Amino acid sequence: MLEQLKEDVYQANLDLPKYGLVKYTWGNASAIDRESGLFVIKPSGVDYERMQPSDMVVVDLDGNVVEGEMRPSSDTATHAVLYKHYQEIGGIVHTHSTWATIWAQAGLDVPAMGTTHADTFYGSVPCARYLTQEEIDRGYEVETGNVIIETFEERGLDVLAVPGVLLHGHGPFTWGKDVKSAVLNSVVLDEVAKMNYYTRDLNSFAKELPQGILDKHYLRKHGKYAYYGQK
Amino acid sequence: MLEQLKEDVYQANLDLPKYGLVKYTWGNASAIDRESGLFVIKPSGVDYERMQPSDMVVVDLDGNVVEGEMRPSSDTATHAVLYKHYQEIGGIVHTHSTWATIWAQAGLDVPAMGTTHADTFYGSVPCARYLTQEEIDRGYEVETGNVIIETFEERGLDVLAVPGVLLHGHGPFTWGKDVKSAVLNSVVLDEVAKMNYYTRDLNSFAKELPQGILDKHYLRKHGKYAYYGQK
Amino acid sequence: MLEQLKEDVYQANLDLPKYGLVKYTWGNASAIDRESGLFVIKPSGVDYERMQPSDMVVVDLDGNVVEGEMRPSSDTATHAVLYKHYQEIGGIVHTHSTWATIWAQAGLDVPAMGTTHADTFYGSVPCARYLTQEEIDRGYEVETGNVIIETFEERGLDVLAVPGVLLHGHGPFTWGKDVKSAVLNSVVLDEVAKMNYYTRDLNSFAKELPQGILDKHYLRKHGKYAYYGQK
Amino acid sequence: MLEQLKEDVYQANLDLPKYGLVKYTWGNASAIDRESGLFVIKPSGVDYERMQPSDMVVVDLDGNVVEGEMRPSSDTATHAVLYKHYQEIGGIVHTHSTWATIWAQAGLDVPAMGTTHADTFYGSVPCARYLTQEEIDRGYEVETGNVIIETFEERGLDVLAVPGVLLHGHGPFTWGKDVKSAVLNSVVLDEVAKMNYYTRDLNSFAKELPQGILDKHYLRKHGKYAYYGQK
Repeated sequence: MLEQLKEDVYQANLDLPKYGLVKYTWGNASAIDRESGLFVIKPSGVDYERMQPSDMVVVDLDGNVVEGEMRPSSDTATHAVLYKHYQEIGGIVHTHSTWATIWAQAGLDVPAMGTTHADTFYGSVPCARYLTQEEIDRGYEVETGNVIIETFEERGLDVLAVPGVLLHGHGPFTWGKDVKSAVLNSVVLDEVAKMNYYTRDLNSFAKELPQGILDKHYLRKHGKYAYYGQK
Repeated sequence: MLEQLKEDVYQANLDLPKYGLVKYTWGNASAIDRESGLFVIKPSGVDYERMQPSDMVVVDLDGNVVEGEMRPSSDTATHAVLYKHYQEIGGIVHTHSTWATIWAQAGLDVPAMGTTHADTFYGSVPCARYLTQEEIDRGYEVETGNVIIETFEERGLDVLAVPGVLLHGHGPFTWGKDVKSAVLNSVVLDEVAKMNYYTRDLNSFAKELPQGILDKHYLRKHGKYAYYGQK
Repeated sequence: MLEQLKEDVYQANLDLPKYGLVKYTWGNASAIDRESGLFVIKPSGVDYERMQPSDMVVVDLDGNVVEGEMRPSSDTATHAVLYKHYQEIGGIVHTHSTWATIWAQAGLDVPAMGTTHADTFYGSVPCARYLTQEEIDRGYEVETGNVIIETFEERGLDVLAVPGVLLHGHGPFTWGKDVKSAVLNSVVLDEVAKMNYYTRDLNSFAKELPQGILDKHYLRKHGKYAYYGQK
Repeated sequence: MLEQLKEDVYQANLDLPKYGLVKYTWGNASAIDRESGLFVIKPSGVDYERMQPSDMVVVDLDGNVVEGEMRPSSDTATHAVLYKHYQEIGGIVHTHSTWATIWAQAGLDVPAMGTTHADTFYGSVPCARYLTQEEIDRGYEVETGNVIIETFEERGLDVLAVPGVLLHGHGPFTWGKDVKSAVLNSVVLDEVAKMNYYTRDLNSFAKELPQGILDKHYLRKHGKYAYYGQK
């Protein structure tokens, strides 16, 4: 079942080391089929070199395995919470990519300092708070999803306009309309996290991008007036 | 038409990821045929892995597509403005390469601190100002070209002696007598942006290169007394 | 003798440059056969490109060569001391990997600032002191092993819960239940050394990971309640 | 003539981009045949991808071309001065490798902060002063060689114990008993320049390596009591 989605998720997982976002098995990508309400995710801790499309695990929105011989990613419950809450999301990626993780460890939002950021993220990428001990005990992976939702609600953010988040002390989650966009958003997030780190260090007076340029770059690539790319 | 130029522009676009200046489709290279007054540029947002020389788009100096099935790069109007104003330019490259973009985001000129810089750029690489809201509204890409020209005129710079610029909050444009030189100049600019960042951090007292050494290195590679390379 | 172990050690040595931990011959990996009390280690100063599994040297726990035509790694005595003292260790890796070596040169422990660290190291990775002149004269490599043991005893650390150490002014040693884990632990140590360096620089107020999250991540991968990976 | 030496010099030049020390043609390697007093050097500004062993140029100790159709490296005179003055040198490499160049631009010696350094350089790698305007006018490349000699004489350094130098505002030269060692010494110099930069930034109190450990590491690899590598 869901053979094409398994192939897409498999390719997305292979793209993570290809783009330098993941070493060993430190990441996971998934994609959802909204008709059946089932999503496909990487198996836990399997070498990328030996992994096959058929190893992908099919899971329902409560995190139960529907098809597959292997255990799904240990972060499956976080993916399930996000798919359940946000109907507009089609794919999710989690990595410990170096630069996004540095900002996550520092507990800071990644501000929009340039057009590379504005082309993809319409404003700062937020850093969600640490989980409390109670939340960890109640269910670490489910509560990780809940803290992401809390962060977006408190700040009134549109989940597709800002398609990513940092978890304090942990690393980034990104998403998109499909899993390929979710991978792209992870690449962008890591690159802007790197560039913004150095920008601040080079010039502590450096400011965030003016609103007009942020709007221009975001809107020439997204929404109905977009003119970037092919029709 | 312009088959050789299409091949050159295609190769130049492939060189951008090869030299680590571009991820995905975040860059564009073009070259002009001065006889016909037409230039060839990359199509917008097309995967480098699938792109073919025949996908290159032929455009006139007002930015109108003359030949090609695909939309040209969204930055085409900026290229057009520069080709129109500077007859001596044969090729243009735009990237969001990491280190040049960091200086662009910081809003700072890249000073000449070493001979790697002096071999290619005869003095600081300037950082142009942000566009105003009025300029953005009037035409973002055309006005980006105009701000580059304004910067070179205000500072009295020779566009071939300093074959590159940073745009505040955005990234670098470089150029040259042909598109191959424009790519080389992008590689050099990113490398010196990196080295100069670290030089300043390592020794805040570090000075710009003495004028005599700047002259020596620039002039042994450029102009009629050059003795670098083969005859 | 020990042909499979030679193959494993050979592969582990090749993995070191593959993961970017080693240039030229600046590293060594070994693995022990606890039944015979013999371990297999890389020959000293042999090009990785020409090295063969059959070049691996078999050594006893006093560091005497039992089989092999070549001299073993100059650090063999350090490996021997560690295998002798810690029965639970099956493989050892020594590198001068960039980021772990930076912390070693700075003489600082690598603190646990994120879950990438917590997934592998249950707390800070300690930096052992410089050897004294007397220890250097007595036997540099043996005493290097003794200083590692001293460090773990003084701090009351479990050698498998914290499977690595830095040597002041030198670089890292890591270990594991087998040589493949020892390589993984070197990769993780270098990556967290890098991320923690930048985290501190980005936010000097950044704190170590809360104990509850450290516990959660370490224990979901290690020990009897682990649920990461396949059964 | 000197066919084997041409092959060695050709390989050494190819090793420079392979080890990440050189982009485009920004480097040169040479080796001398002491019997004939002739040395072989890379031609100036030739693409590494098209370069052949037979393109190497044979030059005498006054820098005159003895054999070869192409112009030798523009830095040939510097190589000639060093070969003439130091009989013990068999090969020379010049690059603008990133990290060594950063220290050169900062005008600082690279201190010995770890054993990676001590394994190859017996103490700090000196940074030579800028050339004066008079020296530049008299002969930039010859005087560059003379300033290197002046630096080693003023500091009383043994040219094989410290097989490299930085030129202020320019970059590194390294050398060795043959051109292969000269390449290795360039790799080591760039790596320790990188590690020492970050060590100082991580811990401003970090000290140079104690003399006893410097001695131990240098002498276990060099001189008659060496026990590193194969007999």
